[in-house]
Amino acid sequence: MPYGDAMNARLRSEERRAEIVRAALEVIAGRGYRAASLAAVAERVGLTQQGLLHHFPTKEALLVAVLEERDQWDAVPDHRWRLDLLASLVEYNAMRPGIVQTFSALLGESVTEGHPAREYFTERYGKVRATMAELLRAAYGERLPNGLTPERTAPLLVAVMDGLQYQWLLDPENVDMPGAFRDFLTLLGEGGESGEPGVGGEEREG
Amino acid sequence: MPYGDAMNARLRSEERRAEIVRAALEVIAGRGYRAASLAAVAERVGLTQQGLLHHFPTKEALLVAVLEERDQWDAVPDHRWRLDLLASLVEYNAMRPGIVQTFSALLGESVTEGHPAREYFTERYGKVRATMAELLRAAYGERLPNGLTPERTAPLLVAVMDGLQYQWLLDPENVDMPGAFRDFLTLLGEGGESGEPGVGGEEREG
Repeated sequence: MPYGDAMNARLRSEERRAEIVRAALEVIAGRGYRAASLAAVAERVGLTQQGLLHHFPTKEALLVAVLEERDQWDAVPDHRWRLDLLASLVEYNAMRPGIVQTFSALLGESVTEGHPAREYFTERYGKVRATMAELLRAAYGERLPNGLTPERTAPLLVAVMDGLQYQWLLDPENVDMPGAFRDFLTLLGEGGESGEPGVGGEEREG
Repeated sequence: MPYGDAMNARLRSEERRAEIVRAALEVIAGRGYRAASLAAVAERVGLTQQGLLHHFPTKEALLVAVLEERDQWDAVPDHRWRLDLLASLVEYNAMRPGIVQTFSALLGESVTEGHPAREYFTERYGKVRATMAELLRAAYGERLPNGLTPERTAPLLVAVMDGLQYQWLLDPENVDMPGAFRDFLTLLGEGGESGEPGVGGEEREG
């Protein structure tokens, strides 16, 4: 096989993988991971199940690819995060309910026994809390106006983001997710470089 | 059949139903609802699947019974709720991870398409937000110290409770759920009749 053909084949294979991961996202969003079938994913991309297994040998391997895909989307170097960027991320999420639904469904499943995404989420939440604590420290110093440390505030910040996603997914008409998140930043109090109500969410993308 | 026998039969049937609901709770906690099988529930209570169907004709009927059971446990007349009781509820939840796991898994699943618990959760969250707003109004009046109304604070209160549950279920060693919730009450600011840090969680049951 000439070199160019091999490269084309690899490119096609990568495109195919990306297509499969997108299809898996949709299927998981619809049914959750445990109830999702490889057959449904294969059908969506016009492959046989055997053809799908060529790209992802197990259902778990496909899940890992979905989770890695998530990490890539939301990748912001840790030192670049700011509170107002977080508000923008929540605004952005409000425009992609399918993605939010996928990960809310997976987070919910991950607490069931022996779930293959459990370790991923446990590790991820540890890292996210640490990143949020640094972000809060950069904005407020060692104490927030209410006396809490950044480390004690970080789990609350993360909890609000996750909890609001469920309320919003269940009832988008009655829950203004980005507005509620900005309200939470207001609760954190003055002194944050971007903790003022309503600031920061409108102009940037997460 | 003499009256006494009929009553005994009814009692036995009710006990049986309660036993089935408890078994269903455990199975859902372990696998989630979609992946839970009636066969697994039947096996746990020593019934055939046919015998189980006598008590609950469908899997959905069993789910509804599980959700109703939840409502009964946590039933506190709306006017009796206070912020410090909420802190106690969170303390109490930290002692029953199985129950928290069941409902966190169900909440996660409920946002997937056509899930039979979706309507239940949507309705329930609407009511819970209204109850929380009333509770915040009783504690703070029309404005919290940071200027938010009770109605705008209520979704945050609910989100923190739910979000902390996921973090705690995933990593109980590193997440102090009751402590974090009391920290959130601190964030709400002074003026709540029981918004002081660390108060109220130790003596009562939720």
